[in-house]
Amino acid sequence: MKTSDLHDLRERTRQFALERNWAPYHTPKNLVMAMSVEVAEVAEHFQWLPTGAGDELDAPTRAAVRHELADVLLYLVQLADKLDVDLHDAAVEKMTVNAIKYPPGPGSALT
Amino acid sequence: MKTSDLHDLRERTRQFALERNWAPYHTPKNLVMAMSVEVAEVAEHFQWLPTGAGDELDAPTRAAVRHELADVLLYLVQLADKLDVDLHDAAVEKMTVNAIKYPPGPGSALT
Amino acid sequence: MKTSDLHDLRERTRQFALERNWAPYHTPKNLVMAMSVEVAEVAEHFQWLPTGAGDELDAPTRAAVRHELADVLLYLVQLADKLDVDLHDAAVEKMTVNAIKYPPGPGSALT
Amino acid sequence: MKTSDLHDLRERTRQFALERNWAPYHTPKNLVMAMSVEVAEVAEHFQWLPTGAGDELDAPTRAAVRHELADVLLYLVQLADKLDVDLHDAAVEKMTVNAIKYPPGPGSALT
Repeated sequence: MKTSDLHDLRERTRQFALERNWAPYHTPKNLVMAMSVEVAEVAEHFQWLPTGAGDELDAPTRAAVRHELADVLLYLVQLADKLDVDLHDAAVEKMTVNAIKYPPGPGSALT
Repeated sequence: MKTSDLHDLRERTRQFALERNWAPYHTPKNLVMAMSVEVAEVAEHFQWLPTGAGDELDAPTRAAVRHELADVLLYLVQLADKLDVDLHDAAVEKMTVNAIKYPPGPGSALT
Repeated sequence: MKTSDLHDLRERTRQFALERNWAPYHTPKNLVMAMSVEVAEVAEHFQWLPTGAGDELDAPTRAAVRHELADVLLYLVQLADKLDVDLHDAAVEKMTVNAIKYPPGPGSALT
Repeated sequence: MKTSDLHDLRERTRQFALERNWAPYHTPKNLVMAMSVEVAEVAEHFQWLPTGAGDELDAPTRAAVRHELADVLLYLVQLADKLDVDLHDAAVEKMTVNAIKYPPGPGSALT
């Protein structure tokens, strides 16, 4: 049997929270709020940069950002788990919706 | 052998952005900002609810939240791609760090 | 003698919430979350722009942003009210702290 | 002549940024992003609390939150200044719009 990496993280975070009795804290509302805090920790590294590309980030910043992206994903996985959302299925489905909203082509400006 | 949902989404989002010439828009900084906007669209559904659990969300709200969680993931995948971060590896590694910060046990209060 | 715009808004928002029986919704936690949602509504207009300056925003966008800045302020005023924070005093005090952290001068890079 | 407290903060922040040559950093886009980071620093204190009211916050947390509310206001004032928005006027105007959207009365549920 194959396990997807998102399902693997779902299992790992379930176990982690269980071992720490975090169920009372981990309401969907609280997980959304925690996820928004982690996103801001990513944003903090980019707020004064021109674009955040390539050499604008030094090595320690890149390492910090890597872990903060992980934090966003870990809260997202836990939130989706509480809400019975399969993230991969939802993302593929949402891309189908987006493809209609933004047809391919050179004039496809983001707004 | 594991399949990788996250790598699959990385490929899909690369192709999607390529077909629309979105490279000039998709700087890391802009993707962070777009991700924060999507997280807030999730948060909007929860801001006045007690916990967001179970029957606090009606069916249309659950469907909307599902797509907004997908949007968060899609921007996260694209951002990680630009920054050469493997999200699953980073998340597993971050959980190891978290396990030291928050040892298991009944007294493991979140702060 | 100074008039206080912030105290005026505090009185107006108290009255507004009272007339609608919003006290049960307006916990500090919920007001923080609502404020973060409004900030993201501002951010949404800027996410794909180079800098957001001058002519990058058309007139309807400028009008929308104006109202969303107002929403941020209104939630901030209400949150500060619940927490017994005088916003002007706190801001002046925080600037004193910031002046020590960032001494004036040409080399005062933001980080 | 009377000076409002929001205009006072506008003058103070102008002077502060000028003395540090921060104009190149202080684009509207960057100020929005910085404001969102400060809002998340407020949110971080509330994410695991039931409501954030009264005795849920200890004295050091209240002091920290006070300064983070100040940071939100300082960025909001600077952003409004760049966009030529008078915050008090905009807030009063927005309340008029809100009064139509949410008529007073016992059934005025927030959604």
